[in-house]
Amino acid sequence: MSYIPAELIKKKKLGGCHSREELNWLISAFTRGEFTDYQMAAWAMAVWFNGLTDDETTALTNSMLHSGSRFDFSFLNAPRVDKHSTGGVGDKTSLLVGPLLAAAKIYTPMISGRGLGHTGGTLDKLESIPGFRVNLSRKEFQSHVTHHYFAVMGQTADICPADKKLYSLRDVTSTVDSLPLICASIMSKKLAEDLTGLVLDVKFGSGAFMRSIADARKLARTLKAIGEKSGVRVAALLTNMNEPLGRFAGNAAEVLECYEILQGKTFAVGGRDLYAPTRDLSLELSAHALLLSGRVNDLVHARNQIRELLASGAALRAFENLLEHQGPSDISRLPTAKFSKELTATRSGFVSAMQTEAIGLALIELGAGRKTTADHIDPTAGIEMFVRTGDAVSAGAPLCRFFANSAAEFVTVEQLLARALEIGETPPKQIPLVAEVLADSP
Amino acid sequence: MSYIPAELIKKKKLGGCHSREELNWLISAFTRGEFTDYQMAAWAMAVWFNGLTDDETTALTNSMLHSGSRFDFSFLNAPRVDKHSTGGVGDKTSLLVGPLLAAAKIYTPMISGRGLGHTGGTLDKLESIPGFRVNLSRKEFQSHVTHHYFAVMGQTADICPADKKLYSLRDVTSTVDSLPLICASIMSKKLAEDLTGLVLDVKFGSGAFMRSIADARKLARTLKAIGEKSGVRVAALLTNMNEPLGRFAGNAAEVLECYEILQGKTFAVGGRDLYAPTRDLSLELSAHALLLSGRVNDLVHARNQIRELLASGAALRAFENLLEHQGPSDISRLPTAKFSKELTATRSGFVSAMQTEAIGLALIELGAGRKTTADHIDPTAGIEMFVRTGDAVSAGAPLCRFFANSAAEFVTVEQLLARALEIGETPPKQIPLVAEVLADSP
Repeated sequence: MSYIPAELIKKKKLGGCHSREELNWLISAFTRGEFTDYQMAAWAMAVWFNGLTDDETTALTNSMLHSGSRFDFSFLNAPRVDKHSTGGVGDKTSLLVGPLLAAAKIYTPMISGRGLGHTGGTLDKLESIPGFRVNLSRKEFQSHVTHHYFAVMGQTADICPADKKLYSLRDVTSTVDSLPLICASIMSKKLAEDLTGLVLDVKFGSGAFMRSIADARKLARTLKAIGEKSGVRVAALLTNMNEPLGRFAGNAAEVLECYEILQGKTFAVGGRDLYAPTRDLSLELSAHALLLSGRVNDLVHARNQIRELLASGAALRAFENLLEHQGPSDISRLPTAKFSKELTATRSGFVSAMQTEAIGLALIELGAGRKTTADHIDPTAGIEMFVRTGDAVSAGAPLCRFFANSAAEFVTVEQLLARALEIGETPPKQIPLVAEVLADSP
Repeated sequence: MSYIPAELIKKKKLGGCHSREELNWLISAFTRGEFTDYQMAAWAMAVWFNGLTDDETTALTNSMLHSGSRFDFSFLNAPRVDKHSTGGVGDKTSLLVGPLLAAAKIYTPMISGRGLGHTGGTLDKLESIPGFRVNLSRKEFQSHVTHHYFAVMGQTADICPADKKLYSLRDVTSTVDSLPLICASIMSKKLAEDLTGLVLDVKFGSGAFMRSIADARKLARTLKAIGEKSGVRVAALLTNMNEPLGRFAGNAAEVLECYEILQGKTFAVGGRDLYAPTRDLSLELSAHALLLSGRVNDLVHARNQIRELLASGAALRAFENLLEHQGPSDISRLPTAKFSKELTATRSGFVSAMQTEAIGLALIELGAGRKTTADHIDPTAGIEMFVRTGDAVSAGAPLCRFFANSAAEFVTVEQLLARALEIGETPPKQIPLVAEVLADSP
């Protein structure tokens, strides 16, 4: 079956609904270059205006998935569960969820991304560990997952090539911010992992792509619908990204935070453990993943089991195993920054809000992130938060510390951070870390 | 000044309004290939959804105009007036308006098009005259206009190249049917003629791009606004295209009809002159053009003067002069078709409606028009109408005759025409030939 490109564009332009056959043809013709870049650009813009139904988005996702090769883990004859986050600042839970699930003997084939824009990427974090290798071959990845339950790799050229091509085009034609196109892009890559379950960490707030919880909920529902229509069990947690998650943001520093949490350490400041948010969210995401695997029957048991895997050191051993089989890598030689500076409160009051995207942009200035995919990263660059939203502070008290191997941008960074950490007269309304759960409905 | 392409696309996508500078940059960057085809396709689709204001459309028109070279007739120190039709079936008035205006000593530099789709083109009609040349150089065209008042040529590569490039792109990305893009395309080419006045013949009905008079009015208003914002006086006539205009549709046959009208002939069938619609509309368009030139003060005087130029043979002499200076061409050797067939009424009643676009498609099947720009034309192919909408007919009476140099498609054509000419119980409501005039407002 073949279609006339302009007729498919016209159909979406007029608000029509594509059949699965049409979307299959569209994506495969696009991959072949027969549905041209300019036709795809016009179609993507029509989608931006008229949207796609869940069925269309699912068909698009599956077409993009089948534009390349996918893993096949069916021979394991066991559940495979992954976690995907929509991105945030200091969002390091993959480094804990992976080891926790491996310790629970749940297969976790994790295809991760690099940081771009104000959000970080798991691959960059792991690469700050001397010797760690993320560029696994498909065969190595499959073997690591099979033998160690957990492995991490980047997207290769043969995984969802249509998504890669479409994403570059959307980037330069102002069609990135289309909910169904975002969902198809995320889910095609996750479906390539051949999962049976997926836990989505959908962030909302000042450091998330979705500022409002309503938008995050809409995104979560669509992602969940696509996964379920494709036969994957999906749970989605709507989580608070109105401040960086935990103590550190920055590649090597986030690895350190996770390693210390796995070792059972806490980091108490003013009677509070600044590691708590990272630990709590990782435990909760892992418990939902365990529940999706079908190995436990309810969330209470899942939480208990996951907590025990952390407390017993089983998750730490799984992480050290990862460092070995994706290395050998030496976490004792995590690089540290040459320069560091503290930011202090200019007045007394309460930390009333954080412009978390601006904190992410400050991280880019420090060298911890990228403006374009070609940018080089300084693994030592980062920010350590001393306060959380709602904390009472006195004038002159330290709010955070930032550090990097070059102090060249420290003036800019200090200005960015000073504006990003808002101090007011009264404490703000507290927002829970996990605001809402869209549970799996098997 | 330079812009980020994706930011310009985003602005239109979000319903924003472009500045003249932005549109100038967009079109010149597009001509240079810096604003790419896929970016233009996305932008055109955003325009399809969000439209352009009259100011934006005018700026776009002028940017396209200045993407190439335009004529400069200011040295004539006299009015230059042209007529533009939005296209129809049997729409041959240019062949009368040009000579009438030349006889009135009004400069008429006419850049015309070829037929595409169901509508005919002036260049194809003139080329059916043995020896007639439409491929004039710019210098020849300018000289002919200067010395003979009237000349006709096709669009050359250096006239509005951005329009040419954009039109091909719109054709394959389903963005042809955007009112502001249609208007900018039409008007950029007309403004290249360096006119002081323009009469628009905006068709409505079953054979027109705009089916309803409301849509035609909207198109007319926008075209008029662009012309006036660019310093050209514009009058627009909304005219009836619910049936072919006059006796013939088809290239050589339409030339014959015009030549006979210029000779003062009539073609009476059943007490009515079948040449009347062509003659009346051409006189009316010419009278409005004369009024726009400023040489007469009111439409009554303009009509009288134009009628006199037809009656006296002055317009015939201007046409014969055109045949000479764009030839030498020999109208006595107009080609005629080898095959011909009559279509008769299958029942008695009234001609209640004509599907005029379908008649245009029948003309394409006969070889009188093109499906794609590469198609070859049979100049002899055509249709002669014996009836008009509202006529009483008896079963078996001839409705029309069709002819061509090949009878290969006669079965298809007969079926198309039989469906297109509808016969009902009662006569339909009569629609005037000129339904509305949007007069020049100097």
